[in-house]
Amino acid sequence: DFLNALQEIVPAFGASTDDLERCRVNGMVECGNRHEHIYKRAMLLVEQVKVSRGSPLVTCLLEGPSGSGKSAMAATIGIDSDFPYVKIVSAESMIGLSESSKCARIVKVFEDAYKSQLSIIILDDIERLLEYVAIGPRFSNIISQTLMVLLKRLPPKGKNIMVIGTTSEVGFLDSVGIRDAFSVTYHVPTLKTEDAKKVLQLLNVFSEDDIDAAAEALNDMPIKKLYVLIEMAAQGERGGGAEAIYLGKEKIKISHFYDCLQDIVRFY
Amino acid sequence: DFLNALQEIVPAFGASTDDLERCRVNGMVECGNRHEHIYKRAMLLVEQVKVSRGSPLVTCLLEGPSGSGKSAMAATIGIDSDFPYVKIVSAESMIGLSESSKCARIVKVFEDAYKSQLSIIILDDIERLLEYVAIGPRFSNIISQTLMVLLKRLPPKGKNIMVIGTTSEVGFLDSVGIRDAFSVTYHVPTLKTEDAKKVLQLLNVFSEDDIDAAAEALNDMPIKKLYVLIEMAAQGERGGGAEAIYLGKEKIKISHFYDCLQDIVRFY
Amino acid sequence: DFLNALQEIVPAFGASTDDLERCRVNGMVECGNRHEHIYKRAMLLVEQVKVSRGSPLVTCLLEGPSGSGKSAMAATIGIDSDFPYVKIVSAESMIGLSESSKCARIVKVFEDAYKSQLSIIILDDIERLLEYVAIGPRFSNIISQTLMVLLKRLPPKGKNIMVIGTTSEVGFLDSVGIRDAFSVTYHVPTLKTEDAKKVLQLLNVFSEDDIDAAAEALNDMPIKKLYVLIEMAAQGERGGGAEAIYLGKEKIKISHFYDCLQDIVRFY
Amino acid sequence: DFLNALQEIVPAFGASTDDLERCRVNGMVECGNRHEHIYKRAMLLVEQVKVSRGSPLVTCLLEGPSGSGKSAMAATIGIDSDFPYVKIVSAESMIGLSESSKCARIVKVFEDAYKSQLSIIILDDIERLLEYVAIGPRFSNIISQTLMVLLKRLPPKGKNIMVIGTTSEVGFLDSVGIRDAFSVTYHVPTLKTEDAKKVLQLLNVFSEDDIDAAAEALNDMPIKKLYVLIEMAAQGERGGGAEAIYLGKEKIKISHFYDCLQDIVRFY
Amino acid sequence: DFLNALQEIVPAFGASTDDLERCRVNGMVECGNRHEHIYKRAMLLVEQVKVSRGSPLVTCLLEGPSGSGKSAMAATIGIDSDFPYVKIVSAESMIGLSESSKCARIVKVFEDAYKSQLSIIILDDIERLLEYVAIGPRFSNIISQTLMVLLKRLPPKGKNIMVIGTTSEVGFLDSVGIRDAFSVTYHVPTLKTEDAKKVLQLLNVFSEDDIDAAAEALNDMPIKKLYVLIEMAAQGERGGGAEAIYLGKEKIKISHFYDCLQDIVRFY
Amino acid sequence: DFLNALQEIVPAFGASTDDLERCRVNGMVECGNRHEHIYKRAMLLVEQVKVSRGSPLVTCLLEGPSGSGKSAMAATIGIDSDFPYVKIVSAESMIGLSESSKCARIVKVFEDAYKSQLSIIILDDIERLLEYVAIGPRFSNIISQTLMVLLKRLPPKGKNIMVIGTTSEVGFLDSVGIRDAFSVTYHVPTLKTEDAKKVLQLLNVFSEDDIDAAAEALNDMPIKKLYVLIEMAAQGERGGGAEAIYLGKEKIKISHFYDCLQDIVRFY
Ligand SMILES: Nc1ncnc2c1ncn2[C@@H]1O[C@H](COP(=O)(O)OP(=O)(O)OP(=O)(O)O)[C@@H](O)[C@H]1O
Ligand SMILES: Nc1ncnc2c1ncn2[C@@H]1O[C@H](COP(=O)(O)OP(=O)(O)OP(=O)(O)O)[C@@H](O)[C@H]1O
Ligand SMILES: Nc1ncnc2c1ncn2[C@@H]1O[C@H](COP(=O)(O)OP(=O)(O)OP(=O)(O)O)[C@@H](O)[C@H]1O
Ligand SMILES: Nc1ncnc2c1ncn2[C@@H]1O[C@H](COP(=O)(O)OP(=O)(O)OP(=O)(O)O)[C@@H](O)[C@H]1O
Ligand SMILES: Nc1ncnc2c1ncn2[C@@H]1O[C@H](COP(=O)(O)OP(=O)(O)OP(=O)(O)O)[C@@H](O)[C@H]1O
Ligand SMILES: Nc1ncnc2c1ncn2[C@@H]1O[C@H](COP(=O)(O)OP(=O)(O)OP(=O)(O)O)[C@@H](O)[C@H]1O
Ligand SMILES: [Mg+2]
Ligand SMILES: [Mg+2]
Ligand SMILES: [Mg+2]
Ligand SMILES: [Mg+2]
Ligand SMILES: [Mg+2]
Ligand SMILES: [Mg+2]
Repeated sequence: DFLNALQEIVPAFGASTDDLERCRVNGMVECGNRHEHIYKRAMLLVEQVKVSRGSPLVTCLLEGPSGSGKSAMAATIGIDSDFPYVKIVSAESMIGLSESSKCARIVKVFEDAYKSQLSIIILDDIERLLEYVAIGPRFSNIISQTLMVLLKRLPPKGKNIMVIGTTSEVGFLDSVGIRDAFSVTYHVPTLKTEDAKKVLQLLNVFSEDDIDAAAEALNDMPIKKLYVLIEMAAQGERGGGAEAIYLGKEKIKISHFYDCLQDIVRFY
Repeated sequence: DFLNALQEIVPAFGASTDDLERCRVNGMVECGNRHEHIYKRAMLLVEQVKVSRGSPLVTCLLEGPSGSGKSAMAATIGIDSDFPYVKIVSAESMIGLSESSKCARIVKVFEDAYKSQLSIIILDDIERLLEYVAIGPRFSNIISQTLMVLLKRLPPKGKNIMVIGTTSEVGFLDSVGIRDAFSVTYHVPTLKTEDAKKVLQLLNVFSEDDIDAAAEALNDMPIKKLYVLIEMAAQGERGGGAEAIYLGKEKIKISHFYDCLQDIVRFY
Repeated sequence: DFLNALQEIVPAFGASTDDLERCRVNGMVECGNRHEHIYKRAMLLVEQVKVSRGSPLVTCLLEGPSGSGKSAMAATIGIDSDFPYVKIVSAESMIGLSESSKCARIVKVFEDAYKSQLSIIILDDIERLLEYVAIGPRFSNIISQTLMVLLKRLPPKGKNIMVIGTTSEVGFLDSVGIRDAFSVTYHVPTLKTEDAKKVLQLLNVFSEDDIDAAAEALNDMPIKKLYVLIEMAAQGERGGGAEAIYLGKEKIKISHFYDCLQDIVRFY
Repeated sequence: DFLNALQEIVPAFGASTDDLERCRVNGMVECGNRHEHIYKRAMLLVEQVKVSRGSPLVTCLLEGPSGSGKSAMAATIGIDSDFPYVKIVSAESMIGLSESSKCARIVKVFEDAYKSQLSIIILDDIERLLEYVAIGPRFSNIISQTLMVLLKRLPPKGKNIMVIGTTSEVGFLDSVGIRDAFSVTYHVPTLKTEDAKKVLQLLNVFSEDDIDAAAEALNDMPIKKLYVLIEMAAQGERGGGAEAIYLGKEKIKISHFYDCLQDIVRFY
Repeated sequence: DFLNALQEIVPAFGASTDDLERCRVNGMVECGNRHEHIYKRAMLLVEQVKVSRGSPLVTCLLEGPSGSGKSAMAATIGIDSDFPYVKIVSAESMIGLSESSKCARIVKVFEDAYKSQLSIIILDDIERLLEYVAIGPRFSNIISQTLMVLLKRLPPKGKNIMVIGTTSEVGFLDSVGIRDAFSVTYHVPTLKTEDAKKVLQLLNVFSEDDIDAAAEALNDMPIKKLYVLIEMAAQGERGGGAEAIYLGKEKIKISHFYDCLQDIVRFY
Repeated sequence: DFLNALQEIVPAFGASTDDLERCRVNGMVECGNRHEHIYKRAMLLVEQVKVSRGSPLVTCLLEGPSGSGKSAMAATIGIDSDFPYVKIVSAESMIGLSESSKCARIVKVFEDAYKSQLSIIILDDIERLLEYVAIGPRFSNIISQTLMVLLKRLPPKGKNIMVIGTTSEVGFLDSVGIRDAFSVTYHVPTLKTEDAKKVLQLLNVFSEDDIDAAAEALNDMPIKKLYVLIEMAAQGERGGGAEAIYLGKEKIKISHFYDCLQDIVRFY
């Protein structure tokens, strides 16, 4: 029976690794102290789950502005945990499903986890799982009730689970009571100038003279926007310039970089 | 026929004990005078149900902040009552069911109870049974109507029932009229410094010098959070320290304890 | 045909008597002048229905706070009327039914009544029949429309009907227009000190010295709460005292009575 | 074909007369000048429908407080018209039907009418047809749309129709636009003292000395309440007095009459 | 194929003419300059559709108070256009249909039109098509979305379409965005005194002396109300007078005319 | 397999070109600097998609007032990209479909795109895709959730996609969070006087003397309204004048042009 159970789990895990890697297609670079601090604390929780006696269920929420790197961080923790069962639950793989089918899938992931001794479940973009929209506001109460119960339900004896949630709508999660259902919450921030500078140095697309100005302009930018912006700027004003830049042969013109920045922040 | 009826009840009871024990996985420690007072009064009600003539239905609500020990208290009362039929109704075992299926299950529990001479029914986390969410607010009116009728309906002659409800949303229960349907309501509080200190002494994870400071910091903390916090702190700053602490070989460092406390109360 | 019709009615009536008696399990004691006045006026209406020519449909609403004795009064009127068809419609017997099934049942009761020369229909706890909840507010409009039509529809020639409604949400009934559909409304009040005293004297559970103080404390209490309270107090501080009290061997200690009173009124 | 059509209509009419008479079970007495004026104007419209060329559809709304005699007036107009097709559409005969079934029935009544040369359709208690309730407010939009279209749709050439609506919620009809769909609106009022006096004289249940005082007390009373009140008062204080009063052997005691009046107006 | 398509269209057109004529059962009289101006501009748009190159879809909204002659005007434009496909879409012919069936019918009318080289589609009483009611407000969003798309969708190459909408709820159409979907909007007004006078002269039902006073009283009256009023007044105070008036043998008494006017405007 | 996949795509593409061309039936003229600037930046993004490594998904929103040329611009970018898969998703082709069918179609378009190496998907008139209406407001949350997920979901490795959205309700898109899901947003404006003048010169329908006055009057007009207006004015006051104008034989009378302008802006 154990073998059977394992078989059920293995493919789920196999498929899942891919999903985890998709959350960090560009690899991971250092994003500053605050990101690192969160990673370390979360890894301590992973440790705690492993050796736990009294608390077989540890729950942790990563919240922060859109594109600040929450999903990538959660995926990294999952991968680095080396737990036999790591699964990401995301709206991407449930497009078009009815609320109750989504519920069923989420429950299934938890019940699969109950068969493994150590598991991590990532609830990615919880507001999207809940089909949240600010107007109304509207969201799926069926799914929200399910999550609240699952976040409190203890796994069977001998099984330990860590649940990591991510969200950029922590206010909403608060008002439905889901945030409270997590034991710990960490705020994943945008980049500060010094963080942005480190990333830019790694990417090596600016000349020494421009890098400080560029980093300054990127203050308070989420990591995702930084990548989009650099890629736009690398094209150059007339296109076709990216190859040279990425090969390190040329640098991004700071004036064009400013133009692109404008396009991206225009109406904010 | 009586034997038949009994058979129906026995397994329900058998299964149920397990459920009751799951509400107090860490055992029960003394949580201070106020918790004790409630326990005693509730046991008097149990007594009253046993010898009752005129009031075959006694209803009692335990309300208080999330994690303050309501479910554990209710389960303990159920276990200590020694009644032949003790059943906990909780959202955990009804995930994904439709509103009307949930209703049917709840009604079934009451009708099973009507067959036993003495019964206790625990309606655990009533707001979750009602699928309550503060936004809107939304909740299942079908289930709320069912509860209101069941909380008023007398059992058949010769059968006596006690119903214990728990909730951390007493304001909501008030506004739908369910709180009023209970004869008695008790407030299960968070821990005061002196309560926390007693618990810490039992756990024996702080050095004598630190225990007062730790208890002070835990003032107004629900018992659940206290347990989570201790387990986190026991890991130590670099993980792996828990074993030594639980074996009593080492003590939790008070500074690390403060750090963990911060993680937990951060955004509150 | 008449025999057939009668057969249909008799069992309905048979079943119903039981239901009526369940509304006054503790028997009926005198609750003061105001209760008595309402009883007398209602019995006059019963008389009127019997001899009526022009108004074959008489409707009367009993409203008042929760537990003030409305259902018991309505049942008593039904029993004392000696009408061949007396039927109570209550949410208790319709738990879990859909709105339209409830409607059908209510209509059936009226249509059965149309076959009897003299009938009383008790619509007990109308807000519960309507699945009313204050939040929203929500209620079943299908059922409310049905009631409004039935409360106005004349029975066939030669058949006379009295409809007695009870409610503790008269404000709600007013706002949906159901209160207006009743010809007469009576307010069933809580007990005043002197009313409570009479009841206590009958129960004979206090010593002569304490009875005035107890009655004073019970001012403005609904009869239902009074019974709950006495039963709690009769247990004594350590339980097990009820037997002696009911046998008249001992009296309730007034200090313990005050304690119990606190439990019951705590958060009101 | 004409014969066929006629057959369809005749039974409908046969059934209908009965319905019309049920609206005035107590016969019709004179209710004062204002009622008479409305009756005359409405009969002029009946006349107009008969000889009309340009306006084959005449619509008229009777609005006024509950029980003021609107339905009785509409029924009387229908009966006095001597039209071959007179039909009353009321919620009484559609209890428990779905919105769309109700719609279908209403449409059917109009389509039957289109087969007759002269028809009157009474839409009785339009707010009840619309399942209106003030909370929300809620009502059936399907039915309200249907009525609005039917009240504007011309009958086939050579067919003339009069539609009479009644309502005690003219404000609501106004806000949904149904009142506007009627060409003419008449307000059917409560009784003034002098109107009430005339009715009391006809009923002959007061002594000459009391009749003015009684009429005075009945100022602003709808005719329906007057009847209920007289029947209550006729019972006497101890019941059983009605027979003597109706036979003219005794008169109603004015003091008891005042008591009954209190019961009826108590909470208004 | 062309012949086939034509066959489909011809019956549609045949049926349609009748519908158009029903919108002006009393024929058309001159209603003053403002009505005439709108007619002329609309006929210019008809012309434009015929010869258009760049704009194969012309849309025009007629809005104005209830009964001001919008539908009659739209029908007249449709008839005078001499286009092979002229179709009126009205709620009258869709009573009781579901929202989606109504949608399908509307779409069908447009798709039939796409087969004809020149078409006019009249969307009569758009608020009724949308099942609009001011309370809420409520309306069919499915139908409103369909209309918005259809009012923007270009017909196939070589086909030209004019869409004429009518409404007396232009504010509502504005707020859902349908008014914006029309290129041009014309306001169809009530009659001014001088407009009313011209109509009265044509009808010839007043004596020379009264006609000015009558016209004065009719200032700001929609044409529909004027017709209703004249027909009422023509009956005379005791009925039966209409024949003589229409034959020109007698005139309407101005005092009776004023009385009728009161009935019609009473509560406005 | 690749061939198979290609086959699936080719017809989609074939059908699509037609759809794209329908968005610019009148061809494209120069609309001023601001339009041109947006076109150039968007073409840079097209370029970026082609050579991208790190960002296989580029999203861009064109927003602006109704009729300002957003769809035409998006279609032009799609055509000029020369990508093998260019598809426009518009409400026109989904009239009458249920929300979930619409979802399925949209998902299908993305999944087809995932099979092509380079794709452009145009989400035209997103508020219409979402069935948005300002009253309420109402919209399809199923579709909005689907779009939000699709706008974030990365295509499979090696496949690059550009998504262009258009909307005239950017405020609404903002409030549901869809605007945020686009990396870049451009505002497509109405014409300024100088832009309008250029267009008028190309159309050559005014005399030299009038062109400045006409352009002045057209300040702040969307391009779509300009075309409607010119076509109306070209008819002349009595119709039939368009031919001569388009052939260049005559010019539009400025006074008539002003009249038409009035019809179009009347109630704004
Ligand atoms: N530390 C990092 N180093 C390199 N790239 C990163 C890092 N963190 C995030 N990214 C990249 O930035 C992008 C956004 O990150 P991610 O999706 O994790 O953010 P998020 O906060 O989950 O965003 P959202 O709120 O949209 O869900 C991704 O492409 C990811 O690969
Ligand atoms: N007296 C006690 N001694 C030891 N542990 C306790 C005690 N009371 C509660 N606990 C533990 O604290 C945790 C929270 O208790 P419990 O679930 O009863 O709280 P609750 O008030 O029902 O919380 P919630 O509001 O989340 O339902 C449980 O793990 C329980 O085992
Ligand atoms: N006159 C009385 N004498 C003795 N017991 C009474 C009397 N009236 C009511 N009771 C008892 O009091 C309790 C409450 O009465 P009852 O159910 O009639 O009140 P109610 O007003 O209908 O309450 P609710 O608002 O909850 O429906 C019942 O147990 C009933 O038996
Ligand atoms: N003129 C009259 N003479 C005698 N009885 C009358 C007269 N008018 C009405 N009634 C009686 O008064 C009662 C109420 O009248 P009716 O039902 O017509 O009032 P209504 O205005 O339609 O009331 P509701 O608002 O409840 O529909 C009926 O029993 C009717 O028979
Ligand atoms: N010019 C006219 N000459 C004669 N009769 C007219 C004229 N215009 C309208 N009518 C008549 O007036 C009545 C109302 O006109 P119509 O139905 O067109 O108004 P409407 O504005 O569409 O009204 P609604 O707002 O109710 O739809 C119709 O009976 C119609 O025949
Ligand atoms: N640059 C242009 N040159 C010529 N015609 C144009 C140009 N841009 C737009 N048009 C025309 O103007 C009309 C409106 O343009 P389009 O539909 O693109 O506007 P839109 O902003 O998408 O409008 P909507 O908000 O209604 O969707 C179309 O007929 C289109 O052919
Ligand atoms: Mg994320
Ligand atoms: Mg609990
Ligand atoms: Mg009751
Ligand atoms: Mg009536
Ligand atoms: Mg019209
Ligand atoms: Mg567009």
